[in-house]
Parts: sequence; C-alpha cells; structure tokens
Amino acid sequence: MSSLNPWSQGILNLIRRLNNFRSGQLVSQCTPFLVDGIPVGTISPYVLPHLEKHTDVFKLVRNDDGGIGHVTLDSNLQTFEQRTKKVDDVMQEFRRKDLFLTLKGWRDEMYAVSRSFYEKPLLKVERSAACLLGVIQYGVHLNGYYKNDKGDLYMWVGRRSLTKQTYPGMLDQVVAGGISCGMGVKETLVKECAEEASIPENLANQAIPCGTVSYCLDNERGIFPELQFVYDLVLPTDFIPTPNDKEVSEFYCWPINKVKEMIVTDEFKPNCALVILDFLIRHGVISADTEQYYTDFVSGCHQTPLDQW
Amino acid sequence: MSSLNPWSQGILNLIRRLNNFRSGQLVSQCTPFLVDGIPVGTISPYVLPHLEKHTDVFKLVRNDDGGIGHVTLDSNLQTFEQRTKKVDDVMQEFRRKDLFLTLKGWRDEMYAVSRSFYEKPLLKVERSAACLLGVIQYGVHLNGYYKNDKGDLYMWVGRRSLTKQTYPGMLDQVVAGGISCGMGVKETLVKECAEEASIPENLANQAIPCGTVSYCLDNERGIFPELQFVYDLVLPTDFIPTPNDKEVSEFYCWPINKVKEMIVTDEFKPNCALVILDFLIRHGVISADTEQYYTDFVSGCHQTPLDQW
Repeated sequence: MSSLNPWSQGILNLIRRLNNFRSGQLVSQCTPFLVDGIPVGTISPYVLPHLEKHTDVFKLVRNDDGGIGHVTLDSNLQTFEQRTKKVDDVMQEFRRKDLFLTLKGWRDEMYAVSRSFYEKPLLKVERSAACLLGVIQYGVHLNGYYKNDKGDLYMWVGRRSLTKQTYPGMLDQVVAGGISCGMGVKETLVKECAEEASIPENLANQAIPCGTVSYCLDNERGIFPELQFVYDLVLPTDFIPTPNDKEVSEFYCWPINKVKEMIVTDEFKPNCALVILDFLIRHGVISADTEQYYTDFVSGCHQTPLDQW
Repeated sequence: MSSLNPWSQGILNLIRRLNNFRSGQLVSQCTPFLVDGIPVGTISPYVLPHLEKHTDVFKLVRNDDGGIGHVTLDSNLQTFEQRTKKVDDVMQEFRRKDLFLTLKGWRDEMYAVSRSFYEKPLLKVERSAACLLGVIQYGVHLNGYYKNDKGDLYMWVGRRSLTKQTYPGMLDQVVAGGISCGMGVKETLVKECAEEASIPENLANQAIPCGTVSYCLDNERGIFPELQFVYDLVLPTDFIPTPNDKEVSEFYCWPINKVKEMIVTDEFKPNCALVILDFLIRHGVISADTEQYYTDFVSGCHQTPLDQW
C-alpha cells in the first residue's frame, strides 16, 4: 500500500528509535559480558578500554585468533557480594573521574544482573551504571484508565517533573518505575502507585498484569536492553491521581484518541509510548483490518531486549 | 530457579514445538523463495527438486559460487493472474502424481502470497500447497468467554470434528479459520462465527481485535510460517454456540483454570493453545511475579513467522 498515514509512520519511527541498537553500527563493535559463564550484557567500545584498566575485576577473554571474545569478572569473584562490591568500586571510580555522562545521574539504587528476571542475581549494579555493562533493565508500567457510561475510553497520563534525571518534562504513564534488586513486580508497582500518584494500596492491588513490552536502544548514556512489565488498572471515574513525590509534575485525563495522537509526538517518553501502543492493540483501539502496519506494531512491542550468544 | 512446574514446562514445550523450524536442521537446507524480488517463502530440500522440473514456472537463481541462491518465478510471469495460473498448474500436477502428503487435503481455497498481509498479493496459491512454498499463512482466532457475577472467567472451547483434514478431534477456539485471498480479517471472523458456532452477525461484530500470535513450524506436510489475528468476544452468559457446519463436533464451556490445564495436554491443537496462552497473559490469569517463564511466554507468543533475507 502506498498511502503513508502519518500516525502509522510515527509509530514505525518510534519502534525503530527504541530498537536502534541492533540496527545500528555499534552492535557489531560490542563485546559480550558474561558472569559465571552466563551472558548478561554487552559492552560498547567506549566502555571497554576503561574496564580493561581494572584487571582485578574485569577480564578480557581472547579468542584463538587473538581477538576479544568476551568480557567477564575475575575468577576470584565467586559470590554475589564479592562481585557487587568490586564492580561498584569500579563504577564509583568512573563516577569520581567523571568518565561517563550516565553516572552524573547516580541513583543509589541497585539493579539485579542475572540470566533472567526470575533467576538468582549474580550481582547487583548501580542503576545508572547498568547501561555501561549493557545489562537488561526491568521496570513496571501502569495504564490507568476507565470507560464512561457510553463506553468511551479515557486514560490518565503523567508529565514527568523538570527535575527528573532522564526525559524531564515528558509525558509518561500514570505510574511507572524501575524494579530494584530484590523487589517483586507487583510490589514495585504498589510502591510506585503510592509515591507517584497517591493511588492507595487496595486500589493498586487491583491492577492486572497484561504482558510485557521489550526493546533495545542505545544513546549518549549507554546501551539499554529493557523489558517493562505492563499492568492495566481501571480507576474509579471520580479518582484523581495526585503527585506524592517530585517525580511527576501533573496528571491529565485524556480521551484515548488524544492519547493515541500524543504518543507519536516528541512529548512522549518513547518507552511509555510503546506501552500505550500495546494497550491500544490489546483493547481493540487499532483495527486489524485498516492499520496496514498492525502486524509490525505487534512484533514491535516484543523485540528481544538482548541477544543470546 | 530449580523447581520445574509441569504446567510451565508444558508451555515451554508448546512454544518449542510451534517454533521447531528455526531451531531444527531443516532451516539451513532451505532456499528463499522470492517473487518479483520480494522474499515471500522458503523452499525445503524435499520440494526443490520437484520445482526444478518445471522450468517454465520456477527458476533457480545461482550465486557466484554456483550454489543455489534463491528460487523465483519465470520472468515471463508478470501479473497476479499469470503467476497464480502457472503455479496452480504445477501444484495440480503434484497432486495428480501424489507427490506430497499435504495435497491429499486439497482445499479449493486460495491464500494470498505477498510481502505483508496488507500489501497487494503477488499471486494466490491453493491453501494445502502454501506449506510447500513456505509462505506465511494468516488466520483469525476468537476467544469466546464471559465472566459470571462473581467475576469468574469461563471460556468456550470447540472440539474439531473427526472428519477435519488436519488435527481431527482436537480442542480448538470456539471459532477460528484461515483468511482466504481477498477476505478481510473481521469479515473472515464474522463468516466463521456463523458457520462454525452459529454466532449471529451482530454479536460477532462486537469481537475486539487484541493483537496477533505468530510462529513457524515444520512437519511431515511442509513448512508453516503462520500469523493468527486474535479477537476476544464476551458472549452472553445464556448464549450456547452450536455447530452450523461439520467443522466442530461439540462445544464446552469451562472455567478458565480448566482451559489453562488443558492447553498443555496433547488434546489441544498447538496454535490454539498458543492463542489461549496469549489470552491468559492479557487477562492477568498468569502472574508476572510467580510464573518464572513469564517473559519467555510473552516472547513465545510473538516469534517472527518468516525471516527476511
């Protein structure tokens, strides 16, 4: 079909932007990062020379031809605690030396590094440093919505505060957050519901898990293979979310078609726009007959965050 | 985690079975099938020698090293009609000579061959012959369900009649069918609703598109890259589907947990089980916290049906 619907084109661009890592130049220059023989990340050529200087922590394993096969941790680091401590020491030094933009946004929040979300973590790493090791970051996003008496769908959308370290001032889900090491998915969601939007626990607990969206992007901060757990929550029509911390500046309640239009604008944080695309698909807002990229949109919500070697 | 939940293991096996093509030996021996320069299928080594004998229709294009690069149609076949006619002649001859098991189930139903579902077909091919060319087959599946007053979820399930050409006697969605060339997705659904389950048009039209599931399997009949459009329909609690043709022998209405248990048994047609897995994920029947393969299940519903060369 030759007609180029601007909205559809905008969604294809969104999917491309969120998956620029695998389609770009960088991927072929990256080195797998393994811990205890398990592939957990990917290291860019901008980071590798700095890790190389810390031979007591990071080891470069060479192929038979002398090329670098992969990066791993020193074999003396056998426990979760040892690995966490030594890797953190390196990241703290990188931070002190001001080597990486991402570490300016140091979070004092630790992310698990493991084979999969459900397996025992091999170590944990400062959130802002995860993108330097290219490890998968997990989060949880909530679609807060309701239907009025006529069946019209409305969705609550948040605007990120201007003081956020990443994507300040951009549009976002009503509630979303990264999952720290040791925290459960629903547990994180309920906590963020209280903190970001004053959604009480009994209401937050009614949120329903509806799948995931996943992608892998790189930017000036690092490499971001990410997987977001998606929840839907029907909010009472008279419930008004209010910010309870400084993460969100204000909330809007929009008809779903306005939300649909907004997700192709530069105002929306891209991964939040993808979560809404998945919502639009699941709730039948997008037609399987008339949307000529329907099948691309579905697959675009479910790209592999990190390749297995 | 070391605990092997039998249900979770059964679902992983289901996903593996539905994607046995890419993980198997056959894929590396297959030859891309292009029409007008557009990759549309994949030809197995069991089929290739037979196509080779029809040099007025199929052309083997060799690489510089003399190996077969891809299969295409003769350059004299420039129109949809010409391609359709000549390819059909070959398939009819294969059928007469009884060369392929799949052609014993000749359907007299034509499937579109194109770059994507939404693009103009390059030709159409007999449904039972599509797996010999490894072209993507599209279908539509309906989850027919309701919630009782307590909020308990029930789903209608069909049993395929023993006279079906494929998967006789197995459990299936309440309504499902392949999409013939020239038919729309919803149009096919409404037609199948009437034929298979006596669901009236006004009710069938309330079905909501909820995405797709996709996979690629091979078996003794051929190669099946498939994409199923998924619809949900809330059926009135007093509505009882009844067979209107000979496709379905009977219908059952089961609590969702019974349906969940049944999809890991050999009684369920595998792709229908996958459609229900997607339903269980979207409706929060599976917990993102306790299902240790949750992320694998989501990605398992959305495998690429056919690789692009």
